[in-house]
Amino acid sequence: MNIDVNPNDHADENLQVSSTVKIQTQLETIHQRTKQFSSNFDTIICTAGGFDVGNIKDNDLFEKYEKLDRMNAQSALLTGHLASRYLAEQGFLCITGAAAVFEGPVNYAFSYGMTKQATHSLVLQLAERVDVPKTSDVICILPTMIDTKANRESMPDADKSTWLPPDKVADLLRAWANGENRPQNGSFAKLTFKNGSVIPEFL
Amino acid sequence: MNIDVNPNDHADENLQVSSTVKIQTQLETIHQRTKQFSSNFDTIICTAGGFDVGNIKDNDLFEKYEKLDRMNAQSALLTGHLASRYLAEQGFLCITGAAAVFEGPVNYAFSYGMTKQATHSLVLQLAERVDVPKTSDVICILPTMIDTKANRESMPDADKSTWLPPDKVADLLRAWANGENRPQNGSFAKLTFKNGSVIPEFL
Repeated sequence: MNIDVNPNDHADENLQVSSTVKIQTQLETIHQRTKQFSSNFDTIICTAGGFDVGNIKDNDLFEKYEKLDRMNAQSALLTGHLASRYLAEQGFLCITGAAAVFEGPVNYAFSYGMTKQATHSLVLQLAERVDVPKTSDVICILPTMIDTKANRESMPDADKSTWLPPDKVADLLRAWANGENRPQNGSFAKLTFKNGSVIPEFL
Repeated sequence: MNIDVNPNDHADENLQVSSTVKIQTQLETIHQRTKQFSSNFDTIICTAGGFDVGNIKDNDLFEKYEKLDRMNAQSALLTGHLASRYLAEQGFLCITGAAAVFEGPVNYAFSYGMTKQATHSLVLQLAERVDVPKTSDVICILPTMIDTKANRESMPDADKSTWLPPDKVADLLRAWANGENRPQNGSFAKLTFKNGSVIPEFL
């Protein structure tokens, strides 16, 4: 099941949410549609997120902050919220943080940094497993550059040989979801790409 | 000069902002009014903030998150933004974080934890001094319980002997603002109250 602002052709079920209406307003519908599909998920993954440059001086600071808060922090918060209701025993909950933000201040992307740090703190709180099953594992992946269409377009001259291919990240997450070589609860895994393979490094 | 949702009788100048209108919408007015008062401040302090309990399962999760994001993260973001335009050389910029959040997950106050961690990351970014004077000092205070009317009402039976008296915290900040015994840029100061005195502990 895919919950997103865009539908995904590969998903058995798509629940399209609005990016402009408050999540609070859509929450009742999200619960209803989710429960219709299943109330017991082995794996819940948040891959939503957004990036934008910008510094503290900018006139549009609060516009960007609210946009990135919604894309990064609130999408992760929704994922955690759904997991608190529907994650199965031995379940796998995965949230997407950001390696650059985890490792140091990112003044060139001020609001991105704040909202991704809020996401990391969300994972620390979820990993206490107060409201998700004690037998489940809450993991945060910290990607470096991902090889997406948007990133290729905004950085046409960059060396893409170290960018993470999304399908290989998905391969790794599928293995972890299946319990194969899954890292322990509370792990923060920085992902890099070397020799054609995605490597996790635990920070 | 006091910028707040409530006026302060002790301030030379009060700029009342709306808590319901987006800060982005009010930003132009905030800049105009601030510049009328001064465009060069020796000290800028953010004392705004809010607390609320609540966990990830709650139906009103997003309502509380947006409220606390506004009170904690966005008030601090506005403070940093104003400092990037109006903080003087050798200036003092002080943001209010939270000791309980800095020291560990606070699942009983989920959105409070996320928004205060966003505030802490804001300070880390500001302390790089990319957009505030290189000679200024950016400090984050991490209060433990503050002896406010609201806290007394919500915890009538608590031992208040270790609660921080706001006027003594103000005494300490006034000294730091004056350059007396001011901690270095980038300091995170946990504040506790012992023997009638507010003590900073640098984390």
